[in-house]
Amino acid sequence: MATSSSVSAAKGLVGVAVSSHGASSASYADCLALPSGLALSSLAGLSLSSAPSSRFLQQRRWSHQLRRRAAPARAAAVETVEAATAEALVEKSVNTIRFLAIDAVEKANSGHPGLPMGCAPMGHILYDDVMRYNPKNPYWFNRDRFVLSAGHGCMLQYALLHLAGYDSVKIEDIQQFRQWGSRTPGHPENFETPGVEVTTGPLGQGVANAVGLALAERHLAARFNKPDNEIVDHYTYVILGDGCQMEGIANEACSLAGHWGLGKLIAFYDDNHISIDGDTEIAFTEDVSARFEALGWHTIWVKNGNTGYTDIRAAIKDAKAIKDKPTLIKVTTTIGYGSPNKANSYSVHGSALGAKEVDATRQNLGWPYEPFHVPEDVKSHWSRHVPEGAALEAEWNAKFAVYENKYKEDAAELKAIISGEFPAGWEKALPIYTVESPADATRNLSQQNLNALVKVLPGLLGGSADLASSNMTLLKMFGDFQKGTPKERNVRFGVREHGMGAICNGIALHSPGLLPYCATFFVFTDYMRAAMRISALCEAGVIYVMTHDSIGLGEDGPTHQPIEHLISFRAMPNILMLRPADGNETAGAYKVAVLNRKRPSVLALSRQKLPQLAGTSIEGVEKGGYIISDNSSGNKPDLILIGTGSELEIAAKAADELRKEGKAVRVVSLVCWELFDEQSDEFKEKVFPAAVTARVSIEAGATLGWGKYIGSKGKAIGIDRFGASAPAGRIYKEFGITAESIIAAAKSL
Amino acid sequence: MATSSSVSAAKGLVGVAVSSHGASSASYADCLALPSGLALSSLAGLSLSSAPSSRFLQQRRWSHQLRRRAAPARAAAVETVEAATAEALVEKSVNTIRFLAIDAVEKANSGHPGLPMGCAPMGHILYDDVMRYNPKNPYWFNRDRFVLSAGHGCMLQYALLHLAGYDSVKIEDIQQFRQWGSRTPGHPENFETPGVEVTTGPLGQGVANAVGLALAERHLAARFNKPDNEIVDHYTYVILGDGCQMEGIANEACSLAGHWGLGKLIAFYDDNHISIDGDTEIAFTEDVSARFEALGWHTIWVKNGNTGYTDIRAAIKDAKAIKDKPTLIKVTTTIGYGSPNKANSYSVHGSALGAKEVDATRQNLGWPYEPFHVPEDVKSHWSRHVPEGAALEAEWNAKFAVYENKYKEDAAELKAIISGEFPAGWEKALPIYTVESPADATRNLSQQNLNALVKVLPGLLGGSADLASSNMTLLKMFGDFQKGTPKERNVRFGVREHGMGAICNGIALHSPGLLPYCATFFVFTDYMRAAMRISALCEAGVIYVMTHDSIGLGEDGPTHQPIEHLISFRAMPNILMLRPADGNETAGAYKVAVLNRKRPSVLALSRQKLPQLAGTSIEGVEKGGYIISDNSSGNKPDLILIGTGSELEIAAKAADELRKEGKAVRVVSLVCWELFDEQSDEFKEKVFPAAVTARVSIEAGATLGWGKYIGSKGKAIGIDRFGASAPAGRIYKEFGITAESIIAAAKSL
Repeated sequence: MATSSSVSAAKGLVGVAVSSHGASSASYADCLALPSGLALSSLAGLSLSSAPSSRFLQQRRWSHQLRRRAAPARAAAVETVEAATAEALVEKSVNTIRFLAIDAVEKANSGHPGLPMGCAPMGHILYDDVMRYNPKNPYWFNRDRFVLSAGHGCMLQYALLHLAGYDSVKIEDIQQFRQWGSRTPGHPENFETPGVEVTTGPLGQGVANAVGLALAERHLAARFNKPDNEIVDHYTYVILGDGCQMEGIANEACSLAGHWGLGKLIAFYDDNHISIDGDTEIAFTEDVSARFEALGWHTIWVKNGNTGYTDIRAAIKDAKAIKDKPTLIKVTTTIGYGSPNKANSYSVHGSALGAKEVDATRQNLGWPYEPFHVPEDVKSHWSRHVPEGAALEAEWNAKFAVYENKYKEDAAELKAIISGEFPAGWEKALPIYTVESPADATRNLSQQNLNALVKVLPGLLGGSADLASSNMTLLKMFGDFQKGTPKERNVRFGVREHGMGAICNGIALHSPGLLPYCATFFVFTDYMRAAMRISALCEAGVIYVMTHDSIGLGEDGPTHQPIEHLISFRAMPNILMLRPADGNETAGAYKVAVLNRKRPSVLALSRQKLPQLAGTSIEGVEKGGYIISDNSSGNKPDLILIGTGSELEIAAKAADELRKEGKAVRVVSLVCWELFDEQSDEFKEKVFPAAVTARVSIEAGATLGWGKYIGSKGKAIGIDRFGASAPAGRIYKEFGITAESIIAAAKSL
Repeated sequence: MATSSSVSAAKGLVGVAVSSHGASSASYADCLALPSGLALSSLAGLSLSSAPSSRFLQQRRWSHQLRRRAAPARAAAVETVEAATAEALVEKSVNTIRFLAIDAVEKANSGHPGLPMGCAPMGHILYDDVMRYNPKNPYWFNRDRFVLSAGHGCMLQYALLHLAGYDSVKIEDIQQFRQWGSRTPGHPENFETPGVEVTTGPLGQGVANAVGLALAERHLAARFNKPDNEIVDHYTYVILGDGCQMEGIANEACSLAGHWGLGKLIAFYDDNHISIDGDTEIAFTEDVSARFEALGWHTIWVKNGNTGYTDIRAAIKDAKAIKDKPTLIKVTTTIGYGSPNKANSYSVHGSALGAKEVDATRQNLGWPYEPFHVPEDVKSHWSRHVPEGAALEAEWNAKFAVYENKYKEDAAELKAIISGEFPAGWEKALPIYTVESPADATRNLSQQNLNALVKVLPGLLGGSADLASSNMTLLKMFGDFQKGTPKERNVRFGVREHGMGAICNGIALHSPGLLPYCATFFVFTDYMRAAMRISALCEAGVIYVMTHDSIGLGEDGPTHQPIEHLISFRAMPNILMLRPADGNETAGAYKVAVLNRKRPSVLALSRQKLPQLAGTSIEGVEKGGYIISDNSSGNKPDLILIGTGSELEIAAKAADELRKEGKAVRVVSLVCWELFDEQSDEFKEKVFPAAVTARVSIEAGATLGWGKYIGSKGKAIGIDRFGASAPAGRIYKEFGITAESIIAAAKSL
């Protein structure tokens, strides 16, 4: 009888697993006796044939189904047998995940098998038992989000996406792990692999992204949910390892998650005591759970993460029961679980096991299959996620239809956030300036733009790393996003730049219509550069509002004065570095930033007042570089002066002086190099005619890189040393960032 | 009688202080009655006339002196009176510090008065009562170190240095606070102001520096102390605020300090509940003390940091009693203490009080003096630190003489560390390679250099952020620096890049002969860039060993592949970006790095094997750029190919091909742009003759900036997009970083 054979097979598997730390005595023959899971395929059949219904969906968990099938009339013994069968299949599924990872890393001869082998149980439970998602629409709005913060273990995620039925990870993709052009790169990349929410690998980023995803859910739920219709309602799950835990960014983000009370954020800490350099005893002996409690988290410890399925499930249930705190589930696992000679050592962290050890692991875990094999019963078991996912989305769509009918305006706003479609004519909200408009710091002009845009962009929200009143980032219509007021849009990040950037990445990737902005002094991009690079790589259109953008901040001195920062972002791929000079250019910078949803923007803004210049325009900014004034004819000026931001004014002044002396002088604002470089050759020639080699640039920053525009014969006026502490005007003068310097340089050409 | 007037004055002062949160009723007349401190000047006389002796020095604390003067025959009442007098003078000294800060910020109309006003009590106790230092020799080796991690409150430190008698901070310097050329810049800068140990301001850096200073002390003490002569023996004190506490870097560094059990590190957490954005309740509600306990620290809470002098002293005593853990003393203070209308608000954090509020504060604290006034009794009281400091150093020098006599070799090594003088001919230890030497990755060659150098450089120590076996940074002669083995030199930083960098800054600034190196993947400089910038600014010659320096790392993909990083450091002031191509260049890079003690070096090293090239040399690297091969004559090649690091090999190959076709081709290694730019014009012309405009550069990184060397007519081969996950060879080919690309570019010129 099928049931009884299942029991013995299940026992066999469990026995193997339990003994896997030592030498296993289970023979292949025991395991080969495993039937192809009749009971399970019939269960899968049940799922497939059930019409989607709310009640079904709520109770769809497999273990629940088992219990439902066990009618009161049946003997308790049968229930036990079925439960054992179920756990045996779970074990088999878990081993499928392990071997997909082992085999993929082996084939690539590159990668990290240790984490997937240790975390397969929690991964299985999450994707098979807990999470709500639709494999055929990885972008379904109300899905649960999963983040593998320990991104090196990406084969765990690829295996899970594959089993769950995502089209992005076919078995061929897994076989192409880490190869050119594959959808299974060496670390999870949302832009390559639908189903991957964010881009991880640099440690600590993922958990901070997860805080952003959970923040987005909480904010949207608070704004849009109604007592009779909780239209926004999902969890955010994250797996992080010892490496993530050591990174400061993780502490920053988790401190905020605790402060905000993000109860639907559930983090699994893969406590395996191994990092690349060996046992964590050599560098990481803090009490992580106690730290998280100090940060305001609920903590749980699952002591047997290798085979303690029941404990993992119970922990998730407990985590969900605590609604006002995020939960850290410390899951103690064995890295490389199942490998008889390499488990629990750093050697399994980041290298292929090697053919011999792969064989030994197959023996040890009782895995008789060829590489990349997914047993039919496992396949069949997981197959229900496609119809279930479709049903979940259909149910939600029906719920949304009811919502839309009853709450028209809210529904429209939420739809805009979900779709990323902005209201027509939104850009008309951008403020317009004339030369008569009062001189002002671009940081203040930035605030005018933010406050104008927030009226037309329902997804705009953000804040500063404890410099709101210096960065000028407060949205005056709104209060603070806080634990008790999550519908508000001013986010208070505290002095946590790195966490802030990564949280904004999470917000941006939650929904296409969410436009997070974040702010600090421009020099402190150094604290958050890793997160900003990930914005650029993962196509998160975060708006970085970076004020105090030069020596113009004055007295705070060199620790606070950016020098090399402009060029450092100009050299970074897929990010726009904008340095507006006045009101119109600031509005232009915001227009560009809002439109570039897959390319983050960095706005460098002044602390000091700047005049409104003649000739600046939003359209000019959109081109990246353009002429603001010119008294030449026939595209043949004697001289081209090029400036950005606060130095454009100086270039304009120098031009006035030189024109008084009869020179034909063009002034170009090169507000965004990246956009200018994208223009046609004709346009570029119109701005910088090749025949005109007399060119002077001025910018209160490093001169490196300016050669691209001024050519071999031009002169770059800038700053190639650290700044100084003194009133701004004095530093400008001492450093020669003046109209006089331009005039002298021009005359020398 | 003097004593009784002192008592009434003291009472008056204490009364004022206690009531200072409300409206004060103390009149100026009460305070003006304060005598000029007869009792105190006689005490100072005692100090001055005492011959330095160990016993004297151990008991030199002023409160102790008071007790010593109180002979048993005296009545207890007299003792009480004297203690009250002492506390009154302390209060007066504390108010002197407060008003120096208030007045300096007011005059500059810029700065941060709030912290100095709140932290003046702990500052006073540290510099007047606890710390051992010599004002006339700020570099005395065995001094206690003090770090103001909350660097914006630098007027606290300037006031203390001034009172203590440091020549670097005269009253005129305080009056020039934040002005051009002054020694009192807007944040503490060690390179401007002797007595300031490190450069702070960017939050969290200082506390991490302090961990480095404490590590250095512990390491040197373990190496050099003898049972009969503890020649290395000082404490490291740090004040950090809420802002520092929020920064991830602080958690990273403090986790390590706890792990290492740095018992002589004592941190004062200025718990004032205010940051720039207002009450910390809006963003920072974690339990800081509990977090530190989780990190393995001893914690103490002083609830009244404003006037609780006895509690602060007791806390320091308790902190010193715990030898195996660092201590966090949470000191609850009122920011802007004494300001009747602005205390306990963000408005006093970062702006001058304003004339009216300065007056009100003078009234409130009973301060009748003109701006910048140091009362005579306060001056007289502090004056003992000059002779005492000289005595401390003299005593230590005597102790060292005994040490040197008995432990010659150790003494010589310690002397080298103290002075920064390297043994003659140290550079002969650098390995030499020939073209026959086996091909190897520069990361491996780097390890050969480190292991060669550690034999001749007693101050070399360092490690990696959990990538020792990838970065190849282990010193084979040594074990791990750990709590139980602090004399070892392999430091295990865990995955804490930012903390690592800042800790190394602290180590470097502890003693001129300490040469810290630290390592991670080059791309993760993004995590530690703020600390690296401070290395450059504060002239800490840290050696950054950055491996996996390009797409050449292969499968890990774009999150791990640096692109814009080379140029981002080339643009940073006062840091050397070196990218050696083979063994000789790696040795050259180490020679440069070791010699540049006031300029940090970043070594970009390959993961992949590279051949030993003909023509490379240590001397070439010292020039930054040089010809490795050339078949032209008369300094007139047809073409110049320029490469760095792993691409120099490709340039050499392309040159071989082109030469076969009869071209005169020069190959230049541009291993360090900064060093090359410092060469004479003649040298530069010899390498890059102006007449030769056909130039092609190749580097697996951003092309921006290369225009400087290839000119308007040259071609730059590089990568201006993110990388990809695939085997390295494939990516090189797909991205066109090949000899074929060079040849095609050359032919197009």
